[in-house]
Amino acid sequence: MRLARIAHSEGVAFVSIEAEGDNDDAAQVLEIADHPFGKPNYTGRRWPLADVRLLAPILPTKVIAVGRNYVKHAEEFGNEVPADPMIFLKPSTSVIGPNAAIKLPPASSRVDFEGELAVVIGRPIKNIPAEAAPAAILGYTIANDVSARDLQAADGQWGRAKGFDTFCPLGPWISTDVDPADLRLISEVDGVVKQDARTSEMVHKVNDLVAFVSSVMTLLPGDVILTGTPEGVGPIDEGQQVSITVEGIGTLTNPVQAA
Amino acid sequence: MRLARIAHSEGVAFVSIEAEGDNDDAAQVLEIADHPFGKPNYTGRRWPLADVRLLAPILPTKVIAVGRNYVKHAEEFGNEVPADPMIFLKPSTSVIGPNAAIKLPPASSRVDFEGELAVVIGRPIKNIPAEAAPAAILGYTIANDVSARDLQAADGQWGRAKGFDTFCPLGPWISTDVDPADLRLISEVDGVVKQDARTSEMVHKVNDLVAFVSSVMTLLPGDVILTGTPEGVGPIDEGQQVSITVEGIGTLTNPVQAA
Repeated sequence: MRLARIAHSEGVAFVSIEAEGDNDDAAQVLEIADHPFGKPNYTGRRWPLADVRLLAPILPTKVIAVGRNYVKHAEEFGNEVPADPMIFLKPSTSVIGPNAAIKLPPASSRVDFEGELAVVIGRPIKNIPAEAAPAAILGYTIANDVSARDLQAADGQWGRAKGFDTFCPLGPWISTDVDPADLRLISEVDGVVKQDARTSEMVHKVNDLVAFVSSVMTLLPGDVILTGTPEGVGPIDEGQQVSITVEGIGTLTNPVQAA
Repeated sequence: MRLARIAHSEGVAFVSIEAEGDNDDAAQVLEIADHPFGKPNYTGRRWPLADVRLLAPILPTKVIAVGRNYVKHAEEFGNEVPADPMIFLKPSTSVIGPNAAIKLPPASSRVDFEGELAVVIGRPIKNIPAEAAPAAILGYTIANDVSARDLQAADGQWGRAKGFDTFCPLGPWISTDVDPADLRLISEVDGVVKQDARTSEMVHKVNDLVAFVSSVMTLLPGDVILTGTPEGVGPIDEGQQVSITVEGIGTLTNPVQAA
């Protein structure tokens, strides 16, 4: 199932997307009452996918990101892969949806994209073992861990560099039936491939990441874990468009604008 | 005015605290409808302060903390004071109220207290000048930026070290009529004074911090900014009690327990 959040002519809703095979041209979105956790309770309202605007598929209470989780990306900045996952937080106010603009802040002269597989938590968990992670995961979406590279280096802590409004594009939807073990991830800037890797290259795997983060903090339904970016990150500039595709999920595309 | 959040016999409520002078022995708490932002709308219900339990005075959508904002604290770890405020985030799930236990995680063998003045935001703001900060601030409370010092050094990023559940005690209430410029801050462990400083020693002052953070991310009502800790931080152990007193606000006390 694919879960999304949409703006339609009368408001905002969670929906599931219903299509014939892989073709979304005639897809319909079915409105879900209240929230997308557990078995959906449909309202009966539906719209053609083409007539609605996709929003960030979830508004997380927190976004936890993992640094240096692909060996080759750690190496491209001369860093070692940490023994434990290195986690940091992005503010919930940094989240935007597909096709919304990433806004380049005046304080930075070098903003990079970072394509990532994102895990969406489905139920409250604290201190669970890795084996219990699959049952606690609602599904998977795509994230762009947008980073002001100059401020990241200058500040040491990444709260500013990775925390600007619009610096966490999420979407286009949450796929609930994906096996995250070995998915191809491709990032493109204006159609030019910049990252092309597989999630099997992750140092710390999805279930281990969920368990690790849950050993630190209570995770709530809708919380999102960004699982790290592979090698090939690079700058994005005003007027460009960045797309991240994860096999089995879809493509997250965002234009880049001056703030 | 002092704003608090309480558990009473029938539920949870925001209240204002009404006392005769500085003596809280006969103080009453007056229930506020809905939320504490703007002019309070009282329900008419009231309880003696002594009969209710104080909770964290606010549940923030995000907690932004500032590192190395007192020269002598930066020096005690051999760090330089950064030109721009160094910001990081603590997860909302780390917040606890007064008298709730700080729980020492098994992953760490060195957990420190850090007493801080905390700013509570009163209205949505983005990119405001420092002069506009006072009108955007609801009031001030006290925070303990509890930190697993060994993990902080090992990880580099502080998401884990400062993000454990219970690692952000807030309270005991929000004082709305305090001038934050020059308040005495005292931290005690089992009654022994460990930190004794004044907020006038901050490198980046409250209004500048609010403006700076708002230049990065939208701040929402209830969001909390921890303004940094002065020198004198140190370890807390199971069975101890840590108290932080800020002049004009009150005292935040928390026991320390094994997880």
